[in-house]
Amino acid sequence: MSNVSAYRASILHCLRDPGDDNEPLASAAVEYFEDGLLLVVDGYIEGVGPASELINTLPTDVQIVDYKGQLIIPGLIDCHVHYPQVDIIASYGERLLDWLEKYAYPAERKFVDANYAKEVAEFFVEELLRNGTTTACVFATVHPQSVEAIFEAASKVGMRLISGKVLMDRNCPEDLRDDPQTAYKQSRQLIEKWQGHGRLSYAVTPRFALTSSEKQLRGAGRLLQEYPDVYLHTHLAENEEEVEQVGRQFPWSRSYLDVYENFELLRERSIFAHCIHLNDDDRKQMAEQGAAIAFCPSSNLFLGSGLFELHAARQCNVRLGVGSDVGGGTSLSMLRTLGDGYKVLQLRGEKLTPFGGFYLATLGAAKALYLDDKIGSFAKGKEADFIVLDPARIDLLQRGGGTNDICSRLFAMFFLGDDRIVREAYLMGQARRPTRRAKIA
Amino acid sequence: MSNVSAYRASILHCLRDPGDDNEPLASAAVEYFEDGLLLVVDGYIEGVGPASELINTLPTDVQIVDYKGQLIIPGLIDCHVHYPQVDIIASYGERLLDWLEKYAYPAERKFVDANYAKEVAEFFVEELLRNGTTTACVFATVHPQSVEAIFEAASKVGMRLISGKVLMDRNCPEDLRDDPQTAYKQSRQLIEKWQGHGRLSYAVTPRFALTSSEKQLRGAGRLLQEYPDVYLHTHLAENEEEVEQVGRQFPWSRSYLDVYENFELLRERSIFAHCIHLNDDDRKQMAEQGAAIAFCPSSNLFLGSGLFELHAARQCNVRLGVGSDVGGGTSLSMLRTLGDGYKVLQLRGEKLTPFGGFYLATLGAAKALYLDDKIGSFAKGKEADFIVLDPARIDLLQRGGGTNDICSRLFAMFFLGDDRIVREAYLMGQARRPTRRAKIA
Repeated sequence: MSNVSAYRASILHCLRDPGDDNEPLASAAVEYFEDGLLLVVDGYIEGVGPASELINTLPTDVQIVDYKGQLIIPGLIDCHVHYPQVDIIASYGERLLDWLEKYAYPAERKFVDANYAKEVAEFFVEELLRNGTTTACVFATVHPQSVEAIFEAASKVGMRLISGKVLMDRNCPEDLRDDPQTAYKQSRQLIEKWQGHGRLSYAVTPRFALTSSEKQLRGAGRLLQEYPDVYLHTHLAENEEEVEQVGRQFPWSRSYLDVYENFELLRERSIFAHCIHLNDDDRKQMAEQGAAIAFCPSSNLFLGSGLFELHAARQCNVRLGVGSDVGGGTSLSMLRTLGDGYKVLQLRGEKLTPFGGFYLATLGAAKALYLDDKIGSFAKGKEADFIVLDPARIDLLQRGGGTNDICSRLFAMFFLGDDRIVREAYLMGQARRPTRRAKIA
Repeated sequence: MSNVSAYRASILHCLRDPGDDNEPLASAAVEYFEDGLLLVVDGYIEGVGPASELINTLPTDVQIVDYKGQLIIPGLIDCHVHYPQVDIIASYGERLLDWLEKYAYPAERKFVDANYAKEVAEFFVEELLRNGTTTACVFATVHPQSVEAIFEAASKVGMRLISGKVLMDRNCPEDLRDDPQTAYKQSRQLIEKWQGHGRLSYAVTPRFALTSSEKQLRGAGRLLQEYPDVYLHTHLAENEEEVEQVGRQFPWSRSYLDVYENFELLRERSIFAHCIHLNDDDRKQMAEQGAAIAFCPSSNLFLGSGLFELHAARQCNVRLGVGSDVGGGTSLSMLRTLGDGYKVLQLRGEKLTPFGGFYLATLGAAKALYLDDKIGSFAKGKEADFIVLDPARIDLLQRGGGTNDICSRLFAMFFLGDDRIVREAYLMGQARRPTRRAKIA
């Protein structure tokens, strides 16, 4: 154990899906050390366990970073977010299709300017880290330079990140359209440059079925065949009006999902945001093909899109993560996103358990993204992406009534916690959390 | 104008209900001064207007407090909140009736201890101020000492506040029950001591129909007749199971509302929290009798109670305010409460407009509480309760994309703002916002 770093704190992570297990700690789906030690060697997890046991195994010259009284968890994972929309969070009054026209497209138009893209991308990556998000699956815009900007910003801090150029060649403003040939060519160039570069992965990113011609969707499928390791990232069945329009636009399709399937976009490493208006046939098909759902509760509430059926998705064994969906979502904090997730499910008479939510933002999300061999828990050999939470930074959390068990404390963070309690974010063992920017004059 | 204080900032307040008015600024339902001056004399509003005009009217020795770049609004009003539940916010997994048994009652039991009540009451009042709430309508517990504690804490800082002893003599834990005689007698004593004492008002507070005997409800009605100036504060039609049980418990009643009406609890200054499961007959009856609804969106989501019908309530002209309903609600911030209000209404296909929401937490709430001659706007002669918001304290708010008009900026604060942007809270012209407590070791 040369070059070992040790972090002492309460430590929590998932070993497997806690599911509907009532006692995930007892059954060891979730592992918790009240006084734990996390060992990192050369940016990778070396081990985790009770401090009292592990301390004696350390070389004598190892300095222990003391976060006692605080909580270390795996870095949070945002499975669906639009970085170019970071400045239009909380834009008033519309549902999906009008919201795109009125707010999203005008915001995305600015990314034709590479310098502008760079500034926003760097701000966005800082905000992710400030919120404790260490991996994200990110929409860029139709402009290749927007993809360059986000990959460069992530690369600079060593963040694991998935992104790609948006493909859209119809039903959107003229000046934001590409065409099937350009879309294919630009995507290819970006894949060649960025896929597997450091911690970066590429996602072929048709915005959604409505904004791509069949030819463009076919080109997207071709890219996936040529580059089997890249992702597919898009939206599916978010809004009823959207679903209806998809039916009209692809009259031959059995369902919205079928459109994507037809163009061979339904496969492993296909990430579909929302998936509110699906049926069990769709869900089973997704599960069989190894695709994943990004549940985006804050966005689904803010845009009035509807209530996601978590129980049904779980029953069908679909891979599942959570997404902030900023700017349709209202917060980059995955803690607050889980809080909204709980609210969505309460309205449906379902429950998002504290550990179940935690799983969806850590190991579950890693599985959804086929990254669970690399991130999402503290299993030996994984990349050391972790965050340090300090609940004492918020009085209401610190008081915490009678709720001193880790499960209740974790759950309270979904509602009372946010970026304020993220004391530190480590990427591959390096502390990276930026403090907030100085006030702009 | 002796003893005048002047505050320079952007200033926003309502002159009347902006309703569905598309241009409330143009129609002067809402008044906004980009560079405004607020004048206060001896704790009361003297005037408000453009700084450039008012500055020349001031005596030369007046020092102007400069909050330039920040926003002054009337202090926010929370129409329904339980102070004894401040430490059980975000308690997991239940809907209303089970949530009461599992979390609320055990928390309230502790208020038998006057010292404990004092500590929590003082913390609660500090939290209100930190969140920019300057008036609240507050549930205490069944213990008279809990009422003493909250009135004393409010009195100490000069906060306008309404509270009262909870009445409950059945369907709740034995050791939290009073009886009709004790309830009546203790309420009377508290009314005699506190009603009209400084800025305090008393509310006769039956928890809800299920937890009071008919005799106790009759006693509550008698108190209101003997003390016509006091309030009635209770819950109404929050949860479907509750509504059903009320029907069984009061088989003679036409509706849940009818139970309260039967005991003469439906009148001016009657504040009913939730009111989700009502019909138009109920709403019209409430409007006619001058009663008010406290819309509690964050609680309604968190407890899965349902989606409030704002449009219907407005059509029936019921007085309306918003409530955090902590601990069923998840935040004491009225800004975040309005954000959740928007989400609730989006799910219904209704809209909470930015100024409409602002009205519900300021002048509308003041009208709901029959306090609009005293608070809720900057009309001359009102008590100078106001807060100073500094959006620059949150990067995402400060950036604010293309949204530089006051309407968009206000709306963004419902989602991106919270206690962090409340720079100062003034009560009767005195700065009172406490900084957060030192970290507890």
